[in-house]
This record gives sequence, structure tokens and C-alpha cells, in this order.
Amino acid sequence: MGFWKSLFSVTDSVETAQKTRLRQVKTPTSQIFFSTDRNIDLYELEELCDSVGWARRPIRKVRKAIEHSFVVITIREQRGSFNRLIGFARATSDRAFNATIWDVVVHPEFQGRGLGKALMQEVVKELRRADISNISLFADAHVVDFYRQLGFNADPEGIKGMFWYPP
Amino acid sequence: MGFWKSLFSVTDSVETAQKTRLRQVKTPTSQIFFSTDRNIDLYELEELCDSVGWARRPIRKVRKAIEHSFVVITIREQRGSFNRLIGFARATSDRAFNATIWDVVVHPEFQGRGLGKALMQEVVKELRRADISNISLFADAHVVDFYRQLGFNADPEGIKGMFWYPP
Repeated sequence: MGFWKSLFSVTDSVETAQKTRLRQVKTPTSQIFFSTDRNIDLYELEELCDSVGWARRPIRKVRKAIEHSFVVITIREQRGSFNRLIGFARATSDRAFNATIWDVVVHPEFQGRGLGKALMQEVVKELRRADISNISLFADAHVVDFYRQLGFNADPEGIKGMFWYPP
Repeated sequence: MGFWKSLFSVTDSVETAQKTRLRQVKTPTSQIFFSTDRNIDLYELEELCDSVGWARRPIRKVRKAIEHSFVVITIREQRGSFNRLIGFARATSDRAFNATIWDVVVHPEFQGRGLGKALMQEVVKELRRADISNISLFADAHVVDFYRQLGFNADPEGIKGMFWYPP
């Protein structure tokens, strides 16, 4: 019973991933799937965000934010019958001109293998497919170089990212 | 007939403005209405954007962008029976955490009277009302000080606004 249950759950998740699959990476011991599937276990996403030390956010608000994001990309690892969320990114957009990328995260165990780069490429590809020309993000100081390597320019022509703070 | 037509069109536009009215400013010769009314004549908006020298954008895409903006604020001047669009701003948002403000414009004839400041205050107020805590924008170099006076910080804690450019 356990065997069949596992087998079916593998099949299911692979099929779901294939439906919305973007790219697939084989490793010696597992397969890694990129997907636009929004059927995300929000507790699993919370664990992923915990793994990189982000402050916890109310699940209710995370659900709403994903619902109102224009692009959502996930990375999942399939190792035997074991499937887990290892990467995530999303973008808000007016669906015409501007998009802003938020919440880019790759699990620490999977960092340094080019998955963050691939994740960003998939986000940009989805936005370009929707004919969005103005793709922006706000980068923490320590990841500015990472995004620069991916073609993002800081402060182009003196344009400044600004945040409102309560007076 | 012309008289009644004008009178009714005044009444109509005032009533529409009142429905969604945010603030109202009386000047010696006219009244200025702030509103969340999205029933915008896109050719009138194009004229407003022309007046500040912005590049023209396809009306079809402008319509889509407004449709998918979370907050839209307009400023209209009512002078006798004459009503016109003199200011505009909008914001995209995930409706939970983040919002980004775009396309802030005040007609040159009405600049320097605090309308831009009032417009931004209305945008921020609407976003705060929706419990959005992270309000951002990308400011051209020459308006960074304007936004700073309104409580926006450039590059807080080293966070950089970045834009993707095609490779």
C-alpha cells in the first residue's frame, strides 16, 4: 500500500509539474523541476523562507500576495518518492508595461549550483512572453552583484529605488 | 440646449467625483477634485502625459495597465462647465505586502501648488488603508528630492532599485 501510495504521489507530482513545466535539471540522485504551478503548500513555502532566515509572515497574506502576483515560479526537487519545494520567486505587474520581482529564494542546500540564476531567467522569460518591457526589482546590498550578472542595472540613468516610511 | 447639456454634464461629473471623492481644493476660479474613479478618458490621459513630455504609449496597453493597477488616483479641475484631467498616479500591488507607484503626473500649469504632494499622499493613504506596508517607487534623478520630502527614502539599508535590460 505504502509502495503504491508513493508511486502514485510521484506520478501525480511529476504530471502536475509537466503541465506547467519550464525546465528540468537532472542531478545524479534527483530531478529538479521549474514550474508555474501555483498550487503551493504555503507551510512548505514558509519552511523554505525560514531556511534563508526571512521573517515569518501571516499565511493568509502570503496566499493573497501569490494570488495577486502576475508570475509565480517554483523549483521542486524530486528524489525517489520525495518531493520538496527548494526555490520560489514571484512578480507583480500591471500586465502591460511594468513588473517588479519579489521574494526570490533558493534553499541553502541548493545554492551555488546556478538554480537562482535559472529561476530569475524563468521569471524574466515569463514576463517577456507577456510583453512586459520594464522589469525591476529591489536588491539587498549583498545580492546586487548577483542580479547585475543577470542583466539587471542598479540606478540606471540616476533612477533611484525609494521606499516610503511612516512619518 | 447647450446650456442644459453643459449644466447636466457638470452635475454628472461632480456626482461621479463625489462618489469616489478623496479631497477637494477650492481655488478662486475653480474646484479641484481628487478621486479613485477609474472611468478615465484615455485620450485625455494621453494629453496629460504629452503635457509633461512623456513618450506616447499604445492606448490599448495603457487601458490594460490601469485595469491591473491596484490603486488609481486622478485629479480633475472643474471650472464652470469645463472639466479636465490635471493629475494622475497609479500603483501595482500584490494586495498584501508590496506596492509600487508608477506614472505620477501633474499638468505643468498646476505644478508648484502642492498638488503633486497631495496626489502622493492620497496614493499612500489608499495603500495604507489596504494594509500594504512596503510602498516603493523608482524616481528619476530630478524628482528624488521631491519624493524624499514626502517620506520616501532612497536606497534604505543599501537596497538598490535595479532594472533588467535585454542582453
